[in-house]
Amino acid sequence: MNKINLSQKLSLIHDHWNPRIVGELNGQYLKLVKFQGPFTWHHHENEDEMFLVVKGRFRMEFREGGNDAAPSQQRDVWIEEGEFIVVPRGVEHRPVADEEAEVLLFEPATTLNTGNVRDEFTVPKLEWI
Amino acid sequence: MNKINLSQKLSLIHDHWNPRIVGELNGQYLKLVKFQGPFTWHHHENEDEMFLVVKGRFRMEFREGGNDAAPSQQRDVWIEEGEFIVVPRGVEHRPVADEEAEVLLFEPATTLNTGNVRDEFTVPKLEWI
Repeated sequence: MNKINLSQKLSLIHDHWNPRIVGELNGQYLKLVKFQGPFTWHHHENEDEMFLVVKGRFRMEFREGGNDAAPSQQRDVWIEEGEFIVVPRGVEHRPVADEEAEVLLFEPATTLNTGNVRDEFTVPKLEWI
Repeated sequence: MNKINLSQKLSLIHDHWNPRIVGELNGQYLKLVKFQGPFTWHHHENEDEMFLVVKGRFRMEFREGGNDAAPSQQRDVWIEEGEFIVVPRGVEHRPVADEEAEVLLFEPATTLNTGNVRDEFTVPKLEWI
């Protein structure tokens, strides 16, 4: 039951796309992460995710559909400081930060950062800070 | 999949201790609430709660024990802007705001604001804003 200061915890993070756990409740984690550049297109089968911008801004790209006959449809939403977005399970998304953004995540403890994808961005086991 | 601006939603709230729902994920709600003055001592049997201060500050008071032979032990934690605290289920607590504070809550959709207590602060059915 100690309080957590977001800025203090963020000052300990010196890399990108590597979420750190800062709180736990009801089987969910609160995580802090720094975004920079484009992430991997992915979705989560069973988890909804919340992204709250603590500092900076980023663009959440969504896409759906796409086959030989028609291109996929893409939609971008800019998330600014003091704003959040919930990405429902199953929705294909990709966060992109043109400049570094500091983000608070809220999602089930089971959530893998790259969802259905395994690549160089995947962090199999998260650490607490 | 629309973004939510915390300040914009908070500008719609003109009362105290009346949480409004602003997001839902994984059976949990994100709520915004304005605190002012002392709330009710209570606990939640089955829910952990997160309190993140968006603006201002408040004091979370905790107490335990207390019987005819010995007084209860109380501990206060000040939660400042940009800080959060998780109150685990079963822990007796009371938020107190000497001046108005704006707070983001994260907790299961089933959570009653006054937990095990029913009094003038109880809000049986929350509304979305």
